[in-house]
Amino acid sequence: MSDTFTRLAEVLEARKGAEPDSSYVASLYHKGLNKILEKVGEESVETIIAAKDAAISGDCGDLIKETADLWFHSLVMLAKLDQHPQAVLDELDRRFGLSGHVEKAARSQS
Amino acid sequence: MSDTFTRLAEVLEARKGAEPDSSYVASLYHKGLNKILEKVGEESVETIIAAKDAAISGDCGDLIKETADLWFHSLVMLAKLDQHPQAVLDELDRRFGLSGHVEKAARSQS
Amino acid sequence: MSDTFTRLAEVLEARKGAEPDSSYVASLYHKGLNKILEKVGEESVETIIAAKDAAISGDCGDLIKETADLWFHSLVMLAKLDQHPQAVLDELDRRFGLSGHVEKAARSQS
Amino acid sequence: MSDTFTRLAEVLEARKGAEPDSSYVASLYHKGLNKILEKVGEESVETIIAAKDAAISGDCGDLIKETADLWFHSLVMLAKLDQHPQAVLDELDRRFGLSGHVEKAARSQS
Repeated sequence: MSDTFTRLAEVLEARKGAEPDSSYVASLYHKGLNKILEKVGEESVETIIAAKDAAISGDCGDLIKETADLWFHSLVMLAKLDQHPQAVLDELDRRFGLSGHVEKAARSQS
Repeated sequence: MSDTFTRLAEVLEARKGAEPDSSYVASLYHKGLNKILEKVGEESVETIIAAKDAAISGDCGDLIKETADLWFHSLVMLAKLDQHPQAVLDELDRRFGLSGHVEKAARSQS
Repeated sequence: MSDTFTRLAEVLEARKGAEPDSSYVASLYHKGLNKILEKVGEESVETIIAAKDAAISGDCGDLIKETADLWFHSLVMLAKLDQHPQAVLDELDRRFGLSGHVEKAARSQS
Repeated sequence: MSDTFTRLAEVLEARKGAEPDSSYVASLYHKGLNKILEKVGEESVETIIAAKDAAISGDCGDLIKETADLWFHSLVMLAKLDQHPQAVLDELDRRFGLSGHVEKAARSQS
């Protein structure tokens, strides 16, 4: 799992100097932060709709794909702002490590 | 990193039989899928706003916390629908493993 | 103002029997409710981003256009579900007409 | 209809000098633009979820209330940035008035 985010972060970092038309990520970087944030918003809505459909149909295939899109574009957002996903995971670990008070910590952030 | 999501998934699974007022997650489960999805939506918007502010101020502290909230509540969503985060990471690995075609795969999902 | 929403509702109703490729609205109807709701979500995020930018630049041009897109697609959503915008305005009037308790009513809905 | 938005805009303008704890809108103004935008995001997600439920149940009661919340908070956003809803309606009229090209205009904005 950690391998996935770490490897994706490396790929995203490597794409930073690339020509806009060389890859999807390079084109997103070139279009700028607003476009990346629009994608985060779009994918969160598509995830929510897929979850509603999954609850009816029992088929979670689309939900998994849309959640992957959401996490992927949030990684692009972090890369664009020069942040590593490990900082987010450390934050979750910090809450999680507080002897089971992860939920309380999560609530206070909301 | 994988430890974080795997351990969180275990915590979220363990909370499923708990009394609604025993923890934040237990109360979310009790309120149902719609409430969990509303939280996913809220946290995505707060993440987007935090990213806009971070781009101006250079301070990414709130962005990291809001992204943690977003990932955390998407994990709660997956748990509510009996899905493990590994399925999402496998999807990202599958795209990522396609010898650099991760961006093309991501685009086709969007 | 009322003329705008009423006339748009009439246009949206008239498009219901049209061929998918005859207009943007007809294509949205054909793609179905999920696609329309994705547009509502996208436009709300674009509105939020435009508002953040407007607060910095002082230029509200994009904000006005994005809000127009948001309202327009929420009208398409209502039409798709055979609801007239007047029902929403009546709800606002009902709250508003409660001698100044509009805010309290709004809060109780949130 | 126009009466609704015009009267709401007047109410929202009048609340601007009020004490934060005197009304819900006054408290929103005091909390600032980010909080208002979070509400716009929340209400858009709640509208989307209500639309999904309405499509299954046939009951559009919640959808009407959530759409009212969404429009209401978008009016608060406009007021906070000193914009009148008529500017948005004029934009829709402009598109609408283009002899049936409303959809094309809407698409070009998206």
